[in-house]
Amino acid sequence: MMTATKVKERSLLGIKELDRTEILQLLNRTAYWDNQAEKLTPVLRSHFVANMFFENSTRTRFSFEMAEKRLGVQVLNFTAAASSVEKGESIYDTVRTLESMGIDAGVVRLKPAGVLQQLAEKVSIPLINAGDGNNEHPTQALLDLYTMSKNFGELKGLKVSIIGDIMHSRVARSNLWGLTKMGAKVQFCAPDNMKAPELAEFAPYVTMEEALKADVVMMLRVQLERHASGILQSADEYRKQFGLTEERAAKLDKNTIIMHPAPVNRNVEIDDAVVESDKSRIFPQMANGVPVRMAVIERAIH
Amino acid sequence: MMTATKVKERSLLGIKELDRTEILQLLNRTAYWDNQAEKLTPVLRSHFVANMFFENSTRTRFSFEMAEKRLGVQVLNFTAAASSVEKGESIYDTVRTLESMGIDAGVVRLKPAGVLQQLAEKVSIPLINAGDGNNEHPTQALLDLYTMSKNFGELKGLKVSIIGDIMHSRVARSNLWGLTKMGAKVQFCAPDNMKAPELAEFAPYVTMEEALKADVVMMLRVQLERHASGILQSADEYRKQFGLTEERAAKLDKNTIIMHPAPVNRNVEIDDAVVESDKSRIFPQMANGVPVRMAVIERAIH
Amino acid sequence: MMTATKVKERSLLGIKELDRTEILQLLNRTAYWDNQAEKLTPVLRSHFVANMFFENSTRTRFSFEMAEKRLGVQVLNFTAAASSVEKGESIYDTVRTLESMGIDAGVVRLKPAGVLQQLAEKVSIPLINAGDGNNEHPTQALLDLYTMSKNFGELKGLKVSIIGDIMHSRVARSNLWGLTKMGAKVQFCAPDNMKAPELAEFAPYVTMEEALKADVVMMLRVQLERHASGILQSADEYRKQFGLTEERAAKLDKNTIIMHPAPVNRNVEIDDAVVESDKSRIFPQMANGVPVRMAVIERAIH
Repeated sequence: MMTATKVKERSLLGIKELDRTEILQLLNRTAYWDNQAEKLTPVLRSHFVANMFFENSTRTRFSFEMAEKRLGVQVLNFTAAASSVEKGESIYDTVRTLESMGIDAGVVRLKPAGVLQQLAEKVSIPLINAGDGNNEHPTQALLDLYTMSKNFGELKGLKVSIIGDIMHSRVARSNLWGLTKMGAKVQFCAPDNMKAPELAEFAPYVTMEEALKADVVMMLRVQLERHASGILQSADEYRKQFGLTEERAAKLDKNTIIMHPAPVNRNVEIDDAVVESDKSRIFPQMANGVPVRMAVIERAIH
Repeated sequence: MMTATKVKERSLLGIKELDRTEILQLLNRTAYWDNQAEKLTPVLRSHFVANMFFENSTRTRFSFEMAEKRLGVQVLNFTAAASSVEKGESIYDTVRTLESMGIDAGVVRLKPAGVLQQLAEKVSIPLINAGDGNNEHPTQALLDLYTMSKNFGELKGLKVSIIGDIMHSRVARSNLWGLTKMGAKVQFCAPDNMKAPELAEFAPYVTMEEALKADVVMMLRVQLERHASGILQSADEYRKQFGLTEERAAKLDKNTIIMHPAPVNRNVEIDDAVVESDKSRIFPQMANGVPVRMAVIERAIH
Repeated sequence: MMTATKVKERSLLGIKELDRTEILQLLNRTAYWDNQAEKLTPVLRSHFVANMFFENSTRTRFSFEMAEKRLGVQVLNFTAAASSVEKGESIYDTVRTLESMGIDAGVVRLKPAGVLQQLAEKVSIPLINAGDGNNEHPTQALLDLYTMSKNFGELKGLKVSIIGDIMHSRVARSNLWGLTKMGAKVQFCAPDNMKAPELAEFAPYVTMEEALKADVVMMLRVQLERHASGILQSADEYRKQFGLTEERAAKLDKNTIIMHPAPVNRNVEIDDAVVESDKSRIFPQMANGVPVRMAVIERAIH
C-alpha cells in the first residue's frame, strides 16, 4: 500500500495545489504521449482504474477511457446517471467499494462541492478529479494549457480571455490557477449575474470589446437552465451580448486562437461557423485531452 | 490520415453502394473468421473502435463488440439511450469528438434518415452503419446472405420472401439490394399499410400463400406501436393474416428455411414453436453476425 | 461443445446443490487467487463472459468484472436497468442471443423466482448465479464463508447469527446452506413479518439479545419499501429493535466479527460508526468477493 503522502502526490484534485514544476512535468509528459506514433503502449497492463462518474459526461469519460486503454489499463466504468447516487454518503460508499476490490486509482466526477477533498482524505488510492461542482476541472485546464503552449511555444506572457458563465465554471477556475502559475495573464468577461466576485482579485472583468483583444479567446458553455429565468437574458440576447459571433470572430487578431471546453451550444455562446473556423482549436483541444490524461493516469499509478 | 477515397472505400454505409465483388469478398472473409477455431485473434490490438448507438440495440451492439474484441480491438461504447442526443447536430458532435480523440473507425446506429451519409462526408474515419432509420442495415443483410449461402451453397437463383412491415424495414431494404445483386429473387408480402410503394419496382408484392413457396421465408419484426391505431389490426389479427404460425410452417417445403432478424415478437409475427424448430435459422443468424462484423471491421481498419 | 453434465458441473446456480468438497475446492482456489501478488493473470484471455444483469447491482457487477479482467477474460456487460426486460421470456432470448454469439459463460442476476433453473436447462453454456430473486446468491455466501474462515481458521463449530429480513434474503439462504454444510451453526433473528417459516427447520429464530452472542453477526440490508406500510415499523423503530447500534456492538464478545453483504443502510440496520469499526469485516468482504469470483469463473470455463 502507498503511504498517505505518496497517494496525495499522485492524486490530482485541482490545479490550485500544483506548483509550476509539476504543471511543466505534466505538460512535458503530455508532449511525449502526443508524439507517440503507436496508439497502444500497454505499460500499465496489470493496473485497474475505475471511472466513477456521479455526474454525466460522455466526452470526458471517453477521453479518460481512451487514455487509460492506450496505456493498457484495465478499465471499469461506473455511471450514476440512472441511479440515485447523489448524496455524498453514497459516493463515498461507491469509491470505498471499488477501492476494496483492488483498483489502483479512481477518476471521479461529481456535483457536490467539497466532497472530493473529503473522499481523498478517506481512501488510500490516488483520485483524479474529472470535474467537481464549480470547483475545479484540472485535466481540462491542463489540456487547455497544452493546446496554448503547442500553438504559441510558451505560456508566459500570453493574454487569455475567458468569456461566459464564470460563476459556475470549474473550467474557468482551473484555467485561472494554471495560467497565472505559468505566467500568463487572465481576464474575464461575463454578464453581471454570471460573475464570480471571489475571483475578481485574480483576474479583472473586462468588456466584450476588450476581451476580444487577446491571444486566446476561451468561450465557456452557457447553461441557461442554471439561471433563474427572471434574471437572465434569452439565448438570443446572450449571443448578441456575449456570443462569439462570426462578426466578432472576424475582428480578432490574425494570431488569436479560439477555444471552448465543449460541448458547445452552437449559435449561443459561439457561432456554428466559428466552431469550424481556422482560428478554432476546439477539436485539437479534444485530441490533446487524451495525452494529457495519459500523463495524469501514469503519474497516479506508475 | 487516410485519403477521402480510402475512407469511403472502408466505410460501410449500405449494401446499395457495394458491387457484387465487394459483397463476395466480405462473405469470403466472413467464412474465414467463421472457421477459426480460436476465438481471439488480436490482429487489431492497437486500434480503437467506438460503437455509437444513438438508437438502442442490445443485440447488434453486442455482436459488434464481440466481433471487435475477437480481433483484439479496443472498444469504446457510447449509448445515447438515457441522454437526449436525438438531433443530427449532437450526433455529429459526438462522432467528431470521438474522431478527435483518435478512434480508427466508428460503428453508428441512429434513427434520423440521411444523417449517416452527411456524417460520412464530414469525418475522416471509416463509418459502419449499424442501422439507420428505415434506410439500411448492411451488416444484418450480410449475415442473412451468409446464412443463406451457408445453407444452400450459393445465393444465385434463390427465391426469398420477406414478410411483414416492409415500409419501416431497413432489413428488408438491405436484403433486397444484396440479394438482387447476388442473383437471388426477392418477393415481399405485407399488409397494405406496411407496403413500401417505392420498392415495388424491385420486388413484387405477393399473397401470404404465395410467399410461403420460397427457399427462404424471412419474417420481419412487427412494431405495432409504429402504426396509427386506427389503421392497424391487433397483434392477434396480424398473426392470423401474416404470422408464420405453426400451421403455416408445417406447409413449407422441406428445404425451406425460416429467418428473422430478431428480436422476435413470439406469437405475433412468428409462433414460439417455429422459432425453435428445425427449419429456423434464427440462432445461427445471430452466430453468423459475429464473423460478418469481424470481416466488416477488418475491412475498415486493417 | 461441452456435454450437458459438464455444463451443469461448471455452472453455479446455488450453494444448495454443492457438496462440502466442492465448497472446499472453491474456497481453496479463492485463497490461491487472494494470495497472488500480481493483479493480472490472463490465463483465460481468449474466453468471453457476459455479465447479464436483469436486476441492477453496481457492486456485484464490478466484483465479477474485476475478477474476470484479472483472469484476462473478455467481458461483455449487459444491464437491463433502462430496458423493459423483466419477463422470463426476454431474459431467455437475451441469454440465448449471447450464447449464439459465442460467449463461454454467463453471469446472470435476475428477479423472478425459478427462471434461472429453467434457463440453465435450455442453454449449453455454464451459468453463474449473481443473485436470483430471494432464492440464492451463491458467490456472496462463498465470499462470506471465505471471510469467516480467513478470520477464524475454520468454519466448523462457528455460531453465525443472521439478522434482518430473512424472508426476502437470498444471502441468508445461500449462507444457511453453505454454513450448515461446513459444520457451522446458523441462527436467525427477524421481526415476525420478515421471518421465512420454511427455513425454521434448518435454523432457529432467536431474540436479538441471543443473536448477539455469536462468532459472526451478519446483518442484512433491510428494504423497507418491500413491506406493506401498515405492517412494518419505521426505519427508526427497526433500528431500535433490530439494528446493530453502537450500544449493541459494544456488548459483543471481543472475538465476534460483524458482516454485511452491502450496500448498507447506515443508521438503519447498522450504525455508521459500526460499519467502520475494528470488528467490521464489511470492506474485507468486498475485497474477498474478487478472488471468490475468480475461482468461480475459472471453474466455469477453464
